Amino acid sequence: MEKTWATSAALATSAAPAAPAASGRGGTVSGADLHLDLSGPGGVRAALVRALRDAVRSGRLAPGTRLPSSRSLAGDLGMARNTVADAYGELVAEGWLTARQGSGTRVAQAPAVRPTAPARSGSAARSGSPARSASAGGPVRPPARPLHDLRTGTADISSFPRTAWAAAARRALTAAPNEAFGYGDVRGRVELRTALAEYLARARGVRTDPERIVVCAGFMQGLALLGGVLRRRGTRAVAVESYGFWEHHDVFTRAGLRQAPIPVDGRGADVTGLDERRDVGAVLLTPAHQFPTGVPLHPDRRTAVAEWAGRTGGLIVEDDYDGEFRYDGRQVGALQGLAPDRVVYCGTTSKSLTPALRLSWMVLPEDVAAEVVRAKSTGEWRTGTLEQLTLAEFITSGAYDRHVRSMRLRYRRRRDRLVAALAEHAPHIRVTGIAAGLHVVLELPPGTEQSTLQAAHWQGLALEGLSRYRHSAAPALPPGGPDGVIVAYGTPADHTFPGVLEALLRSLPPAG
Amino acid sequence: MEKTWATSAALATSAAPAAPAASGRGGTVSGADLHLDLSGPGGVRAALVRALRDAVRSGRLAPGTRLPSSRSLAGDLGMARNTVADAYGELVAEGWLTARQGSGTRVAQAPAVRPTAPARSGSAARSGSPARSASAGGPVRPPARPLHDLRTGTADISSFPRTAWAAAARRALTAAPNEAFGYGDVRGRVELRTALAEYLARARGVRTDPERIVVCAGFMQGLALLGGVLRRRGTRAVAVESYGFWEHHDVFTRAGLRQAPIPVDGRGADVTGLDERRDVGAVLLTPAHQFPTGVPLHPDRRTAVAEWAGRTGGLIVEDDYDGEFRYDGRQVGALQGLAPDRVVYCGTTSKSLTPALRLSWMVLPEDVAAEVVRAKSTGEWRTGTLEQLTLAEFITSGAYDRHVRSMRLRYRRRRDRLVAALAEHAPHIRVTGIAAGLHVVLELPPGTEQSTLQAAHWQGLALEGLSRYRHSAAPALPPGGPDGVIVAYGTPADHTFPGVLEALLRSLPPAG
Repeated sequence: MEKTWATSAALATSAAPAAPAASGRGGTVSGADLHLDLSGPGGVRAALVRALRDAVRSGRLAPGTRLPSSRSLAGDLGMARNTVADAYGELVAEGWLTARQGSGTRVAQAPAVRPTAPARSGSAARSGSPARSASAGGPVRPPARPLHDLRTGTADISSFPRTAWAAAARRALTAAPNEAFGYGDVRGRVELRTALAEYLARARGVRTDPERIVVCAGFMQGLALLGGVLRRRGTRAVAVESYGFWEHHDVFTRAGLRQAPIPVDGRGADVTGLDERRDVGAVLLTPAHQFPTGVPLHPDRRTAVAEWAGRTGGLIVEDDYDGEFRYDGRQVGALQGLAPDRVVYCGTTSKSLTPALRLSWMVLPEDVAAEVVRAKSTGEWRTGTLEQLTLAEFITSGAYDRHVRSMRLRYRRRRDRLVAALAEHAPHIRVTGIAAGLHVVLELPPGTEQSTLQAAHWQGLALEGLSRYRHSAAPALPPGGPDGVIVAYGTPADHTFPGVLEALLRSLPPAG
Repeated sequence: MEKTWATSAALATSAAPAAPAASGRGGTVSGADLHLDLSGPGGVRAALVRALRDAVRSGRLAPGTRLPSSRSLAGDLGMARNTVADAYGELVAEGWLTARQGSGTRVAQAPAVRPTAPARSGSAARSGSPARSASAGGPVRPPARPLHDLRTGTADISSFPRTAWAAAARRALTAAPNEAFGYGDVRGRVELRTALAEYLARARGVRTDPERIVVCAGFMQGLALLGGVLRRRGTRAVAVESYGFWEHHDVFTRAGLRQAPIPVDGRGADVTGLDERRDVGAVLLTPAHQFPTGVPLHPDRRTAVAEWAGRTGGLIVEDDYDGEFRYDGRQVGALQGLAPDRVVYCGTTSKSLTPALRLSWMVLPEDVAAEVVRAKSTGEWRTGTLEQLTLAEFITSGAYDRHVRSMRLRYRRRRDRLVAALAEHAPHIRVTGIAAGLHVVLELPPGTEQSTLQAAHWQGLALEGLSRYRHSAAPALPPGGPDGVIVAYGTPADHTFPGVLEALLRSLPPAG
């Protein structure tokens, strides 16, 4: 949920140790009673860095909290603006904060991500405080953790094909040559790259051979390697969709690249402005199902971006995160098929199987492949190979296709139920992005996004607003952008879906 | 094997495209016929970077090749020394070269590491050229790839417990809660951290709890995270053993830290000089079995380094890479037990099971743990969790202990046979480092290291010299260091060991 930390009255400086003022508030930080301890060794900037870091570490500044602009905080604290900007920059580099170009610095997501289910009994080693503190009377409170999770990020993890995966693992381990248990090829196991080349050609229209595929431990690891390669090639900036996942954009920032947001509309990302940005050497796109708006990239736009890349020598980074899930029968191939020499195609098992696997792949133009392999050759980027063998076996045995087909059917049924329920009970809400993927967007009347999220929260529903993914430096869009909530209907377990739908309908603003 | 690229006559500049002069030479680069193409866009420095990168990429400069000093190359090319130094620096940053402080820049190891066995039939997707070119008459040549590998880096990968591991994977997958298939805790699965805390206390004397353990995808990934944390804490330099594995040291360089080599002698690393180095905030040690000399860190030295850390607030990074393999019954606990608040203990499955797993762990002081977790929270550092569950099950079921015991017995038998064979057939060769680990050092008469390596090469034996691991900026050692070869007797498969011993004995210099 979006949290904005108002600047005025948000901060008080103090030489005393910070009091845990905001504890016990269910994660909402008002800021008014937050103290920054600016005492201690070093200059003003070091003190500010320390104080902010402590506030984040202690939880007083909750993940997602938006910080005041450097100008505004500098005014409040009587510091030079650069001092605050530098402190922010350092904390971004350290990973405590995330920056979106211009304004919009916020506290990074917490290290421990989304504990959506209680720990397995017998495995709980977190000694000390009990898991939940007893409710001590008082007013009725929303559930401490949501009953249902409709946030994007994972598919239905309860559907992981445990038995089939274990069987594939056993077969792969039995068949593996001894050398598979050594360090192996930095690009990944040839068995997996071969299986992927065949699968991606068949399922996604990708044109490649195993030599140009590099297996990584997740999409973001691939992006990080690619960001370093781009930077060393002299690229200064990467164009990103003005609605998108900032954690992906921040990978480029950590690689020393600027972010250049480009508009997104009902036909997807619009690259026509890029010709004026000579510093942009690459563009990151989600062509199959724009994240988060859900629209597929229009054919004219596909041609336009391929032409831009051909004309300028730029690279297109295609994030095909849920390309396997399209429901209207008109399978749209990967953009990579249009321009295999200019597109870096990125895929992952995170949505089709589970993010717990940490397996992803990049299909690269030949020259880029060589540089990515080189970058990946330092030991800290090695990817485990046993699960690569398992995935290769899982694909070649047909189990992967079966699983994707089964999940596609299941997700499609959920989508149909969601769309039908909305049509019946909330016909004033427009649903977009329904042709593919694992989420849709519900367009809301202007000004109702935050109240809808609040209502969902009280219904025990974890939901995200569209504005959460709006790039703060997005050009050519109405201020604040459109209102909407993202419904990741792929996330909940199947048996919970009826309850999810009811809670969602209760959260939406009434007609008129 | 060590390759030195002589400076004089080593380079000729040319405006013509480089000819693949050194191809077909079995990887030995003489340099005399190597051309650097310095034409093309950009300045002299850019041209040099491009030419060297191309030479490495094309294989004309083989992995491990030592480059001339920047001063010497600058003289040969008629450039300013800084131009060459900058070009080297850039290529180190890109991963094409590795730098050891001062002199000693060399070509990085090739991306594809050690294909020690032929590819599995049916899985070979490398189309194009046949795997081996037909031998076309001419003089007798050494084998194109070694018959036996005695280089350090992996244990006996043919002994990976495939059946037991597959069974543990099945049990772990069956028992896992649904949330295990989500993104999960950045520190790693609590099941594994709990199992490790118990195991490390019992087997290695480590004092910890699961909260202070962070699971990583390999030792070097942990080092990279730690390097970033140290740098942000203000540490400028890390002390490293003057004999050690430069790839580990280079991780710190990439994190922006200097390397400060400290002497190694018969009692291990000597930290007494560190008090004069106020820029050193941490020291990387291999206390159980110094790599590569094989000596355990003497108790007095253990105390001394713990005192240094306590006195200065420095951190000790303990690389316990083969701590499980000690043969004389006098199990020596981890250094961490002496100073749990000052030691970062690092362990891995790479030697005990297989490097293909990419699973490692760091046991951290509480304050460092929080910062490492924060650094690991950006998505590119996530570690897969399914294999963590398998390893947890493997440990708690007792299978890990059984495997380590069985391998310890097997390695001990090999060591005994090696030591006995040397005593009988080469009594003039002294063997050191025999009490633990997976390798020993054979001390050689001065000036015989290179010829021994060459003889081993002709015997089909891949072997490494001690000088390969000598830090180029090592102080207080005789120039060139002692002569010796490292015999990683843990690496070959069991059934090949008699042949390995015979070939090794034939490679050693005669007495007198």
